[in-house]
Amino acid sequence: MILSDALSGERFVAHYQIQCPAAEIAQRARDIAIEQTIEFPAALVTDPVIRDHIIGQVAVLHQIDSAAFVVAISYPIEAAGRELTQLLNVLFGNVSIKPGVRLIHFALPDALAAQYRGPRFGSSGLRTLLNVYDRPLLCTALKPMGLSALALAELAYQLALGGMDVIKDDHGLSDQAFCPFEARVAQCAAAVARANRESGRQCLYFPNVTAPAAAIQRRAHFAKQAGAGGLLFCPGLAGFDALRELADDDSLALPILSHPAFQGTLCLHSDAGIAHRVLFGQLNRLAGADGTIFPSWGGRFAFTPEECREVVAGASAPLNHLRPIFPVPGGGMTLERVNELVAFYGRDCMLLIGGDLHAHGSDLVENCRRFVALTAQAATDCSPQ
Amino acid sequence: MILSDALSGERFVAHYQIQCPAAEIAQRARDIAIEQTIEFPAALVTDPVIRDHIIGQVAVLHQIDSAAFVVAISYPIEAAGRELTQLLNVLFGNVSIKPGVRLIHFALPDALAAQYRGPRFGSSGLRTLLNVYDRPLLCTALKPMGLSALALAELAYQLALGGMDVIKDDHGLSDQAFCPFEARVAQCAAAVARANRESGRQCLYFPNVTAPAAAIQRRAHFAKQAGAGGLLFCPGLAGFDALRELADDDSLALPILSHPAFQGTLCLHSDAGIAHRVLFGQLNRLAGADGTIFPSWGGRFAFTPEECREVVAGASAPLNHLRPIFPVPGGGMTLERVNELVAFYGRDCMLLIGGDLHAHGSDLVENCRRFVALTAQAATDCSPQ
Repeated sequence: MILSDALSGERFVAHYQIQCPAAEIAQRARDIAIEQTIEFPAALVTDPVIRDHIIGQVAVLHQIDSAAFVVAISYPIEAAGRELTQLLNVLFGNVSIKPGVRLIHFALPDALAAQYRGPRFGSSGLRTLLNVYDRPLLCTALKPMGLSALALAELAYQLALGGMDVIKDDHGLSDQAFCPFEARVAQCAAAVARANRESGRQCLYFPNVTAPAAAIQRRAHFAKQAGAGGLLFCPGLAGFDALRELADDDSLALPILSHPAFQGTLCLHSDAGIAHRVLFGQLNRLAGADGTIFPSWGGRFAFTPEECREVVAGASAPLNHLRPIFPVPGGGMTLERVNELVAFYGRDCMLLIGGDLHAHGSDLVENCRRFVALTAQAATDCSPQ
Repeated sequence: MILSDALSGERFVAHYQIQCPAAEIAQRARDIAIEQTIEFPAALVTDPVIRDHIIGQVAVLHQIDSAAFVVAISYPIEAAGRELTQLLNVLFGNVSIKPGVRLIHFALPDALAAQYRGPRFGSSGLRTLLNVYDRPLLCTALKPMGLSALALAELAYQLALGGMDVIKDDHGLSDQAFCPFEARVAQCAAAVARANRESGRQCLYFPNVTAPAAAIQRRAHFAKQAGAGGLLFCPGLAGFDALRELADDDSLALPILSHPAFQGTLCLHSDAGIAHRVLFGQLNRLAGADGTIFPSWGGRFAFTPEECREVVAGASAPLNHLRPIFPVPGGGMTLERVNELVAFYGRDCMLLIGGDLHAHGSDLVENCRRFVALTAQAATDCSPQ
């Protein structure tokens, strides 16, 4: 196919924040536009279509301060192929290796976004599954690592009976000899089903299917068969496209929570990597997650309130046809902070409390009920969004 | 299985460099030991086996300066399961989200390392395939993006005829409409085979099989059928375990070059992420790459000579049974720097020059021959290693 016939003329745009002196910004932007496409000396390109259409076009220059700029670079949608891996590559592949460049935003024309189904459920679909509409959803994790499948199932039963909406595996549970995947998932799913029969509720169990490449699908389908209500996945460990594949699988059709393991470095420094909104919001939605777990401010990690707001924006702001998804603040949240969290995140979030549910006496069911009651009360107090 | 029966007592060790005041280091180290395993309040753990054996053990504290320490934390090998994804998770999953922590080294007991076959060829196996023993191997890339499969094949023919050992796809070539994967790979492999018949040499073509999760294996097998001599893969885009799966596939049995796209942020800041030696050396070997492409100092990127030495150390220093692999310095290398590069990297590397081969007149075959001659001369001048 002749190149010009293959190009629709539609382009997608990435915004990069670049740290450099004003005298260098034009060249730095041009370097990125080349690095992310032809990776070749522009002067040696003889085909005018490559020169004029394949190479990124520096569309906007916006100065933040004397040594920081925002640059918008557009790329032909065809450069990204029809593949999430290649879209990520054009957005931030080699540029990731350049100091002082941060991907802070991207925008896709509908023709490109349409290649991605995105979240199958999104936040509204998850609410429908759970039949909970008026308060934040409540999530907890099965832990600690080292417990047997049987012991985790007993925990799952109590957590479900206590009123949790979603019970996920701790992301450190994979397929260890002391707690094999299939035994754990079968027993935990059965325990949650038993609790649901007793309570009349719809608690969903999300086992962790982050796994070797060839095992991901197998485990996900085993989980579905065993009665799991969703899946937990770590795209930082196993790839955003493996997440997309799970989300797109019509024979699974399960909601998915995305966990940030191994991705922290990507957002930690404001002069590099990928902004929180893009990494935990836009990319997870593009890959089809229905909720994005992130470490909220005030816990064991160091995200600021502003960075958490950015995650929320990425999870919920309009993004082509892609459904809004739940921000899932976690990482050391506690019952005593429920009011504060609901005031901050509003009703449209999923609160994740793990260890602290065990820190208020030995009656886990009662502790969960307290979490439910605190959240319901906080949601009532919370002004409508 | 009872937990104590499931634990062999063998542990693997991760070294983290931590930025913090001296008064906090013991607690910071303990926090990591918990974060990477049980993610649970240690005081609430009732099982002594979990407390004493599952939780990471802080084995060594070494002070670098008044606000930086190296901590060695050991984990039971069973925590990592038998899965590269979970090993990565224990080494650096949640800790990636903690500011001021860098993974600078890890060491596996043979019982854990034995789960990984590692590089099928390694540097010595690649030399055997290519029948080149006395100089650095020479690699180049098919580019720029936008050329047709036919045009790239014509380039591949000339590059092979000119004496390149390895011709890889530019990592930005995936399956774009203007250059579909199958057409490109079939034509480029045929072009290289034709050049080999004429030259009597063994140039190998490495197409890029970084792809959506379900397409990786399919493309790799297509490439093998079409006559590709190896594969290019970006673990940052598609996951280290997908690389391992390619390397372990006996029906492929092809050498693999690992490309650092999307991984740069992981190593850029010395107070976070993963050290160059670990990221580009140890992890690539564990995942089975036979060569590790990285941006050499003095090119378009910003690695220092010291960081490049670290990559070389990670690629070649003893690491259980895992074969040494080729460091592949690239990222804007030029013919005029060949002497300098060989003096720096020695004979046991693969030099990667892409665009600059096109910058010395239109006779690409002649430019390649100059690259070969310069390298051979530099290797002769280079003292034996």
